Amino acid sequence: MVTKTVERITIIGSGNWGSAIAKIIGNNVLDHPDTFERTVRMWVFQEQYNGENLTDIINREHENVKYLPGIKLPENVYAEPDLLKACENSNILVFVLPHQFIQGVCQKLHGVVSSNCKAISLIKGLDISEQGISLISEDISQQLGINCAVLSGANIANEVAQEKFCETTIGATSPADGEFFYKMFHTPYFRVNVVQDKVGVELCGALKNVVAVAAGLVDGLALGDNTKAAIIRRGLLEMRKFGQTFFKGVQNETFFESCGVADLITTCSGGRNRKVAAAFVTSGKPIDQLEAELLNGQKLQGTSTAQEVNEFLTARNMTQGFPLFTTVYRIIYEGEPCTKIVQDV
Amino acid sequence: MVTKTVERITIIGSGNWGSAIAKIIGNNVLDHPDTFERTVRMWVFQEQYNGENLTDIINREHENVKYLPGIKLPENVYAEPDLLKACENSNILVFVLPHQFIQGVCQKLHGVVSSNCKAISLIKGLDISEQGISLISEDISQQLGINCAVLSGANIANEVAQEKFCETTIGATSPADGEFFYKMFHTPYFRVNVVQDKVGVELCGALKNVVAVAAGLVDGLALGDNTKAAIIRRGLLEMRKFGQTFFKGVQNETFFESCGVADLITTCSGGRNRKVAAAFVTSGKPIDQLEAELLNGQKLQGTSTAQEVNEFLTARNMTQGFPLFTTVYRIIYEGEPCTKIVQDV
Repeated sequence: MVTKTVERITIIGSGNWGSAIAKIIGNNVLDHPDTFERTVRMWVFQEQYNGENLTDIINREHENVKYLPGIKLPENVYAEPDLLKACENSNILVFVLPHQFIQGVCQKLHGVVSSNCKAISLIKGLDISEQGISLISEDISQQLGINCAVLSGANIANEVAQEKFCETTIGATSPADGEFFYKMFHTPYFRVNVVQDKVGVELCGALKNVVAVAAGLVDGLALGDNTKAAIIRRGLLEMRKFGQTFFKGVQNETFFESCGVADLITTCSGGRNRKVAAAFVTSGKPIDQLEAELLNGQKLQGTSTAQEVNEFLTARNMTQGFPLFTTVYRIIYEGEPCTKIVQDV
Repeated sequence: MVTKTVERITIIGSGNWGSAIAKIIGNNVLDHPDTFERTVRMWVFQEQYNGENLTDIINREHENVKYLPGIKLPENVYAEPDLLKACENSNILVFVLPHQFIQGVCQKLHGVVSSNCKAISLIKGLDISEQGISLISEDISQQLGINCAVLSGANIANEVAQEKFCETTIGATSPADGEFFYKMFHTPYFRVNVVQDKVGVELCGALKNVVAVAAGLVDGLALGDNTKAAIIRRGLLEMRKFGQTFFKGVQNETFFESCGVADLITTCSGGRNRKVAAAFVTSGKPIDQLEAELLNGQKLQGTSTAQEVNEFLTARNMTQGFPLFTTVYRIIYEGEPCTKIVQDV
């Protein structure tokens, strides 16, 4: 008798995007019983919903009624409020939670996760400071001592959950891991492309938000379609230049992937960064006031990334080489006129 | 005493785009009196407007009241209704007229144009048939025995005429010609990038319309931003593949230029190809009926290019390699369901 080992998956996070991804993974593991364990664990930060534990509702109704209402999750997705229990004996960790919680989660998991575990990060963000840039997937790798791939693309969670056709990009330095994650994530409506340029994929996911702020400024100024397309294009090239200046091995081709040009198009069409930046122009209010009014005080990702990028570039005397990123920062935080977005880039 | 030769420019065409370009060139020559003759001739197909010759109005009012109303042209732009007079002793010909008139114009100019003349084509289109593909700039070159560069980008004429910031791409095989045309076209609000990959630039201008039809189908089906971005991205890659399969020297980088990704974004946001394709889905009417109703019977460029591309690919047994172009053709002309746009690509 041969005992076959199957991979146990834990999804760490259960927001809008985490739940949409749980639906995909939950269904996909059923097609590959030789590779994956049937039950997919999803760590849920416990909350009360209508006087009940959210996990209890999810496990009974197979629906994340709070963060992805109206979408049924596969019955083999199991919600678990205890992080360590959720990750117990897992071989595969899928990180899909807000940027600011990742440190705390990794600290709890430190020393618990076995070294033959694989991870993939769906988190969009960067830790940039004057000192340097650290990628979230690298933070995870270092803190847990495991490999961490990334997934990023033009993936608005609700549209993915409704099975509307889209694409995504997985960046995995090892081809075997790439193939493995492809099996976990690819569906006919959620098409996966795997590339080795993990850093390029991850940078796109963070830097696109700065470009979306620029696009929002153009919308606020009512400059029209030519101008907006020009700003998106310049933004794409500046993202690429940033990647290729500060990291080794970032490929041109990555910017043609879903994580690059497609995600940028989506983010510059809809999305909160674009919207709040447009309101910045038309209302004349400072950005922190708009964040308070429109985002419940939450920080906008594009503007805070612009600020961090500016700090990083200023420390290296390199702001001039990145005129779009720099101009976004100066408009939002230093009182430069909004029209500079088409004069100084 | 030294006699300095200056270049005489003729703009062949005076529609919306021709007039916007006449404004740019008319202003630019004033900044370079050592290089260009002061008067810029513009050939105008004579029409009556309020009982007067259109050329007379343009030369008196300095405004193309019919095709670009509300925009003042520089006074040194001179409208001339006689094609041969307009081109007399010109060294620079700017072709900016509808695709279907180019043959007739070249026949009239054949043998008249001197061989040291340079041309640049702003015409978007291709001549494709079962036999092969001929680029408009090549037709001009061959018929007149002169070099012909191309200019293409995210350039909606009215927005350019209003001096809203945008970019464009000039494709010129000779760097000297590239530099020369840069001087003629570049302004702070109309930023020119010159590349050597002339073929790539010209192909983008024609093939983007097929992708815009696909984007319009997605809009008609209300599939959302993820799907539209995925289709635009796949379209961009299929344009590139088409160029690199059937022509030598088409560069990846060209698709990052304004003529590539930016023009595609603009065309897929607004534009008649997108609009009519969306109406094709929602109305269920055949394309020729929509052309009659919405375009005054004019043929839509994206659908006719899709038809020609399909003929060309079918003759080479290569439709499978270009699923987006092929699916657009089959949906529009062969009754395939519109939803195939996300299933067969």
